[in-house]
Amino acid sequence: MDAYNITVVGGAGIVGREFLSLLDSRKVPVKRLRLLATARSAGKVVEFRGEKITVEETNESSFTKGDDVVFLSASGAASKLYAPIAQANGSFVVDDSSAYRMDPAVPLVIPEINADDLEWHRGIVSQPNCTTTPMVLALNPIHRVNPLKRVVVSTYQAVAGAGGAAVDGLRAETVAALDGRHEPSGTQKREIAFNAVPQIDLFAEDGYTKEEIKMANETRKILHAPDVAVSATCVRIPTFFGHSMSVWAEFENPVSPAEARHLMESTPGVRLMDDPGQELYPTPMDVAGTDEVLVGRLRADTSLPGGITFWTVTDSIRKGAATNVVQIIEEAARRGLIRR
Amino acid sequence: MDAYNITVVGGAGIVGREFLSLLDSRKVPVKRLRLLATARSAGKVVEFRGEKITVEETNESSFTKGDDVVFLSASGAASKLYAPIAQANGSFVVDDSSAYRMDPAVPLVIPEINADDLEWHRGIVSQPNCTTTPMVLALNPIHRVNPLKRVVVSTYQAVAGAGGAAVDGLRAETVAALDGRHEPSGTQKREIAFNAVPQIDLFAEDGYTKEEIKMANETRKILHAPDVAVSATCVRIPTFFGHSMSVWAEFENPVSPAEARHLMESTPGVRLMDDPGQELYPTPMDVAGTDEVLVGRLRADTSLPGGITFWTVTDSIRKGAATNVVQIIEEAARRGLIRR
Repeated sequence: MDAYNITVVGGAGIVGREFLSLLDSRKVPVKRLRLLATARSAGKVVEFRGEKITVEETNESSFTKGDDVVFLSASGAASKLYAPIAQANGSFVVDDSSAYRMDPAVPLVIPEINADDLEWHRGIVSQPNCTTTPMVLALNPIHRVNPLKRVVVSTYQAVAGAGGAAVDGLRAETVAALDGRHEPSGTQKREIAFNAVPQIDLFAEDGYTKEEIKMANETRKILHAPDVAVSATCVRIPTFFGHSMSVWAEFENPVSPAEARHLMESTPGVRLMDDPGQELYPTPMDVAGTDEVLVGRLRADTSLPGGITFWTVTDSIRKGAATNVVQIIEEAARRGLIRR
Repeated sequence: MDAYNITVVGGAGIVGREFLSLLDSRKVPVKRLRLLATARSAGKVVEFRGEKITVEETNESSFTKGDDVVFLSASGAASKLYAPIAQANGSFVVDDSSAYRMDPAVPLVIPEINADDLEWHRGIVSQPNCTTTPMVLALNPIHRVNPLKRVVVSTYQAVAGAGGAAVDGLRAETVAALDGRHEPSGTQKREIAFNAVPQIDLFAEDGYTKEEIKMANETRKILHAPDVAVSATCVRIPTFFGHSMSVWAEFENPVSPAEARHLMESTPGVRLMDDPGQELYPTPMDVAGTDEVLVGRLRADTSLPGGITFWTVTDSIRKGAATNVVQIIEEAARRGLIRR
């Protein structure tokens, strides 16, 4: 792989820092690394491969024709502003916001599933929401041989999905709550310590939240399956890292749990951790620092003959975010799609 | 209502104490109250209506023909041992364990739904699992006019459902975890602080847990609907009180969210707390001390035309347990079914 000039917007954030750590552990060659962030984080010094890098404030002139790869890990508004600039410079842009995910001109990629979609990129590649990736990764091995028809999913999402401030917020709220005080940190829609909040992002007209609608739309786009029916309920719970979800899935033809297990087991990126006899299944505590989607509780859907249900847990900062971005860059590099 | 001699087994437990508080707040006439418990709790003194009552150790001779009502709030094993003794004494036994729930000779009762089943009791009446009651209460208003066909449910259960020790366990684990230490309290299958554990009770052969199977079987029995298809995933999360769940339901005929809302709103025991425009929905923090099933996020199931999905939260110690027991006693008394 060639060594590239990589620029990270949101370089001081929770996903940005994990991205740097993955560049390092996966030995991704880097010619020059630049870290951009909001004024609040500018001036911070981050060490990368023995070099001290000072975080710079992002503005419209931050981007240059020398940027081979630009990773945008900031707000949707920031992505809308900066992605076109980086794109115009000829940079390969990977965007982790929802800004371009449903744009028909932008591929939405999980490399294990639809790496070929990278071929038609026009400078911007989008990264799925951190809840979509694990669900779709677990369903795809079956979908490839037996098209997915319908999915019901209920999530148990960690605060890290809302950024570093939300991690600090849960900690602070918990300390207060143990002392009998209710001090909402404002990082979630409601106090999250010892609570469960069934709202992530804003509500749309139909009563679903944008987070729930993302899961539906992104699943259809990634799987090239525009008719898949999806209903999601997304819930924040007081865990720090690791998004969990319970999934019910129906395919064109009946699928047995044994068949589903066999198909998932033979797929990179998916790991079965599933033995009821040993009371073995994944929990958020088991996934910190892993790059796979852990699947457990795989069984027949007793409400629908031929359907299956399972539980899955993923490190939302790794495969849910930073790992998938690094994999997109690696795959695009391998295919000669950066600076082509 | 007549004043009865009431005996509580598990009188020092979290549900037992709530039961006493409800007898008081609902002004249930009590002639004589006795509190029984395991050796560990024997000797404790509990105040009830100004009287100090000493908790006695339960044994087979604890029960007398003078007991009008016996409330068993202990283990399934204790219920198996003591319920027949109390029954033989002519007492009206309300059992909160799973021991008799599926016994065809024992009514399983939620008074708002199937109070008439009390009529055929033979001394023992069973109380549903604390996750079944809220789900069935929310579904019944629709089921009465449009039979329930299929339910998918994913729970977010508080530790209080596992008793007072589990409440202390979550607190202790949380204090340790904030200090970077992992010290499982042993009150759940895994460490529960800042985690989510998809196992409550033991696993059965089909990969479902007993808790999940209870939700299915009890729903069918309470609704007199033996063909309803149910698939549940039961998960413990780090909340102290208040069981939440996301429910997807299909009925014989299509139902609109507006119709479902109207039917639920006009049903005692169910309260809508549902206004996406105001970001209004129930969370576990909202239900402490309430006796209703709070329903929010009611909307069309986008995965199935004519289906609905909603979020519900209930105080598992109140309507999930103690309140329902008091209501059973009140209703049986009203119908002359105690000491008949």
